[in-house]
Amino acid sequence: MADIPARTEIGVTTGPIRGSKKIHVAAQTGSGVRVAMREIQLEEGEDPVRVYDTSGPYTDENAHIDIMAGLPALRRDWIMGRGDVESYDGRDTKPEDNGQLGPDRSGGVDPFPNVVKRPLRAKPGMNVSQMHYARKGIITPEMEYVAERENLGRARLAEYIRDGESFGASIPDYVTPEFVRDEVARGRAIIPNNINHPESEPMAIGRNFLVKVNANIGNSAVASDVANEVDKMVWSIRWGADTVMDLSTGRNIHDTREWIIRNSPVPIGTVPIYQALEKVGGVAEDLTWEIFADTLIEQAEQGVDYFTIHAGVRLPYVPMAAKRMTGIVSRGGSIMAKWCLSHHKESFLYEKFPEICEIMKAYDVAFSLGDGLRPGSIYDANDEAQFAELYTLGELTKVAWEQDVQVMIEGPGHVPMHKIKENMEKQLEACGEAPFYTLGPLTTDIAPGYDHITSGIGAAQIGWYGTAMLCYVTPKEHLGLPDRDDVKVGVVTYKLAAHAADLAKGHPAAQVRDDALSKARFEFRWRDQFNLSLDPDTAEQYHDQTLPAEGAKTAHFCSMCGPKFCSMQISQEVRDFAAGKSLNHPGDDSVSRAREFAANNPNGVLGNAENVKTDEAEAGMEEMSEKFNEGGGELYVKAD
Amino acid sequence: MADIPARTEIGVTTGPIRGSKKIHVAAQTGSGVRVAMREIQLEEGEDPVRVYDTSGPYTDENAHIDIMAGLPALRRDWIMGRGDVESYDGRDTKPEDNGQLGPDRSGGVDPFPNVVKRPLRAKPGMNVSQMHYARKGIITPEMEYVAERENLGRARLAEYIRDGESFGASIPDYVTPEFVRDEVARGRAIIPNNINHPESEPMAIGRNFLVKVNANIGNSAVASDVANEVDKMVWSIRWGADTVMDLSTGRNIHDTREWIIRNSPVPIGTVPIYQALEKVGGVAEDLTWEIFADTLIEQAEQGVDYFTIHAGVRLPYVPMAAKRMTGIVSRGGSIMAKWCLSHHKESFLYEKFPEICEIMKAYDVAFSLGDGLRPGSIYDANDEAQFAELYTLGELTKVAWEQDVQVMIEGPGHVPMHKIKENMEKQLEACGEAPFYTLGPLTTDIAPGYDHITSGIGAAQIGWYGTAMLCYVTPKEHLGLPDRDDVKVGVVTYKLAAHAADLAKGHPAAQVRDDALSKARFEFRWRDQFNLSLDPDTAEQYHDQTLPAEGAKTAHFCSMCGPKFCSMQISQEVRDFAAGKSLNHPGDDSVSRAREFAANNPNGVLGNAENVKTDEAEAGMEEMSEKFNEGGGELYVKAD
Repeated sequence: MADIPARTEIGVTTGPIRGSKKIHVAAQTGSGVRVAMREIQLEEGEDPVRVYDTSGPYTDENAHIDIMAGLPALRRDWIMGRGDVESYDGRDTKPEDNGQLGPDRSGGVDPFPNVVKRPLRAKPGMNVSQMHYARKGIITPEMEYVAERENLGRARLAEYIRDGESFGASIPDYVTPEFVRDEVARGRAIIPNNINHPESEPMAIGRNFLVKVNANIGNSAVASDVANEVDKMVWSIRWGADTVMDLSTGRNIHDTREWIIRNSPVPIGTVPIYQALEKVGGVAEDLTWEIFADTLIEQAEQGVDYFTIHAGVRLPYVPMAAKRMTGIVSRGGSIMAKWCLSHHKESFLYEKFPEICEIMKAYDVAFSLGDGLRPGSIYDANDEAQFAELYTLGELTKVAWEQDVQVMIEGPGHVPMHKIKENMEKQLEACGEAPFYTLGPLTTDIAPGYDHITSGIGAAQIGWYGTAMLCYVTPKEHLGLPDRDDVKVGVVTYKLAAHAADLAKGHPAAQVRDDALSKARFEFRWRDQFNLSLDPDTAEQYHDQTLPAEGAKTAHFCSMCGPKFCSMQISQEVRDFAAGKSLNHPGDDSVSRAREFAANNPNGVLGNAENVKTDEAEAGMEEMSEKFNEGGGELYVKAD
Repeated sequence: MADIPARTEIGVTTGPIRGSKKIHVAAQTGSGVRVAMREIQLEEGEDPVRVYDTSGPYTDENAHIDIMAGLPALRRDWIMGRGDVESYDGRDTKPEDNGQLGPDRSGGVDPFPNVVKRPLRAKPGMNVSQMHYARKGIITPEMEYVAERENLGRARLAEYIRDGESFGASIPDYVTPEFVRDEVARGRAIIPNNINHPESEPMAIGRNFLVKVNANIGNSAVASDVANEVDKMVWSIRWGADTVMDLSTGRNIHDTREWIIRNSPVPIGTVPIYQALEKVGGVAEDLTWEIFADTLIEQAEQGVDYFTIHAGVRLPYVPMAAKRMTGIVSRGGSIMAKWCLSHHKESFLYEKFPEICEIMKAYDVAFSLGDGLRPGSIYDANDEAQFAELYTLGELTKVAWEQDVQVMIEGPGHVPMHKIKENMEKQLEACGEAPFYTLGPLTTDIAPGYDHITSGIGAAQIGWYGTAMLCYVTPKEHLGLPDRDDVKVGVVTYKLAAHAADLAKGHPAAQVRDDALSKARFEFRWRDQFNLSLDPDTAEQYHDQTLPAEGAKTAHFCSMCGPKFCSMQISQEVRDFAAGKSLNHPGDDSVSRAREFAANNPNGVLGNAENVKTDEAEAGMEEMSEKFNEGGGELYVKAD
């Protein structure tokens, strides 16, 4: 039976994913950079399969996990080695940072015991963003790491003919560090990694790389706590989340975030306006640029890798939402809309945008330019408010790029399938190919409880069209805060959608995993089939619900059809027989012959085998038949 | 809290779907035909919403359900009224019909207690298929029923501008019985209803109608029994299955099917080769045309509405499967492949196809021409074997249509997204627009346990492109036999995919339900939101996991964000305020102004509100701000 890995005292899940082991591969540049991935061992002499792995040291049998200490500072030497940062006395944590000035006065939680007192920032006049280095022609160790990670499986590329439809993307056969540098320099990809988050394993978000997935965690005033949120982070990356956003809106936002970042091997994103709102006791009108800027610095010192900032919710656009079915569904967007209306002023996020860039570039925090006016219903899809904001985000992208600050653009939302492509096309036009990062989109509103699926459908499509990262949606969307089971289901759903997009784009070697799994399935290597899947635990549990005995793991059937009806078993017999003879089969022209025959016989005269086969095939068939029957022609042979 | 409806003694679920009541609407022709649907009552004076309903009398509070008696013979008068049928002494049930000659000698189950001893068939020389009537210019009561059912919601069409991309389909604003007749006459739609299944509520499968969903049930040698299978059928139609296939391969096939058909208000499909194989003790080589023909008659007498027949698995195509990754994944296809090889003969299904048509037309059984050579892995997608068979199915379609026998065409399988459209295009070309009926397709192989989602992605797309019916896939696909929970998840997944396709095709009034639900969501009518959804029980349960108190059902927040951060609540305030004033907002040219500004300012000079607003808007904004603040500017107002 499948067993569930043990959880540590503080509640995070450790131990390898079933069937996998963590490996570290040296970057081919020989620089010493070693890249984490995992390898799935297979049975019966099959080559092992390596897969991209976001789970960090938690799934490394050789790692010692101590949530109180945090993860090793993997990137520290690289950051220090660039000589452009200084440490300084960071800002003190204030009670309002943890929501203790507002009506929800909290008893607080234990702060992370090993906070870095003196955070890093750029030396005066310096810019530490990966885009800045890229534009100076520098290939950083982070870029090398990304190249090696993204090259996974391409060693087997020679076995494949590339086949896909990428709608004009530029996906190379092999990813070199130079390719990564160029993509980052032109803004077509970002590597989100704050200098104060040295624990992160570098990754790239961009159309010409693997499609990525983000998981949202975070408490609310109504539900959850620090232990749950750290657990959810570790659980989400176990199943494949490439980045995690901490969207906490309740108490203890600062302390919760510290625990998360110190223990996260993936980039962490936030929406700083949430915490700023808590600091003014929940009264949106009392927000100020000063409080917001202080919050940006606070979060940058902790190591947040990207900020969602709704700088496109401009005063004149707010009334456009009045004629919508579901108004403004973005929390940050609705908060800024309220501020703009009450002050009758342009958004301070928009007006102070260059100043925000100054902060971002001192720490290498990337922008996630928020889609505060995204559509929250099919009725509102692709409306005036949505696209007005998009063009403004394009304008702001240029401002950010003037200062070499990394940018990605957020996107919808709720969009019926026939309107999805327009979103991709407009975003490419408006935003200079900055990476697109969408929430779904949901392709219908009628299935709360199943919105991971309504949106998985849209996400797979928009990923295929060129979206670089997909923000997951869980079964709890519209209904409540997700728990850890929901987080897993959301992550796996989005991983399969992202992979479907990679396949359709013709990403080299994406199909290696599908082929290995299908081969295992056909050959009844059940354990291999489970271990190669996105969720080996669930696959095995489902199988074992009806066939738990150990012997069933090598059986040539399952409970769907039973031993007499398993098409895979029968197929095996057919194939083995055909392979055993130098069988001439009719060859490539059978399809056109069948087609021609059908076209030339409109009155439904039946064809016969003469119409299709050749003389060689005839002889081969007869021989096959004799041999098949001589071989016993048995339908089922016991496996053991 | 959500309660689960009670189950009867034999275990089927009855009682209305939460928030809905069954109604019967008179067909507009005034003929007396009354069509079953359901109506969802809403709160606060909102118009009720009617939805298409497949659940039959089981959800009708006024119906008396007696599984031993079966459902009322709804169509009997219509069938008898055509004067072209006779009753006769049907074939006796033999032990081998229930698998009692093979090694799995069974103790049997209680047969259905009210079997019709004298089934109906066409009088000599007559043809009772709906296609035959349609081609004679006759509009049957079945066609009227279909028209009324498909017209659901179109009364509100005047509120909508049709908007979609249907890739050349011909979806009318209103469905008339004449339109139905024409579609059936030209073979572009079918109405599957055997004259011996008078209990069925007529429905149409065709590109120009709502996209339909099929659920598979049936036991295997390893799992399940009669009570479970009848329960699954009732459960699957409760959640929206338009047809059900009984794919039993274990014991008691004949008796199980009788219980199912007598109690099914939806069309029932089967794959007769399975039962034929049981009759020869599981030895494929011992199959004969005579045994198969006898099985067709046996099943037609019981009332099966459509037969999957793998007549396209021709002898010369079988070796093409030898070079595949996963061979032949269709049970029926693999059985016929084995038969062809061992006899070195062309398939008797192909050679006797005209004789099969003679049987079908005497009962009005429709063909589902089987895709025995469908791809079972990404590797095999769109290969030679698959398309050779497709063109042969096109040829056979013409033969069937020569005898006015209804036809639909089965399709794949496992297909990456970029190869999906080719399937639709080739099928339209090859099969004369006969309805397409696909299994997914799955868009990646790497997620067993989640294949309802990998395939939901492909199903939504191919439905959008023109596929008429989608065969569901459950989470147990590739792993084991689905239980009732899996059946429900599979059905709801496919219903949402079919609906997403209807929306994208621009099906008139498909959006009525999305809009009603989103409006309910925006106005915090939680019960309405749940009741309008595809699965009200689950939506409510998920909500109640964190907010179970009754008061939460009218709360202006949920546990995702809590009271201070609910964007919908804030949006309400913004909208109410804007609506209260004769507000001039900048108008339709804002998007192009924003776009123009961005294009003309490549160096990232920030715009300001002057770039976008007008003088009227300026005045309006100022007034709005004063009023907003005078109104108290409160963020959250208690709901009760």
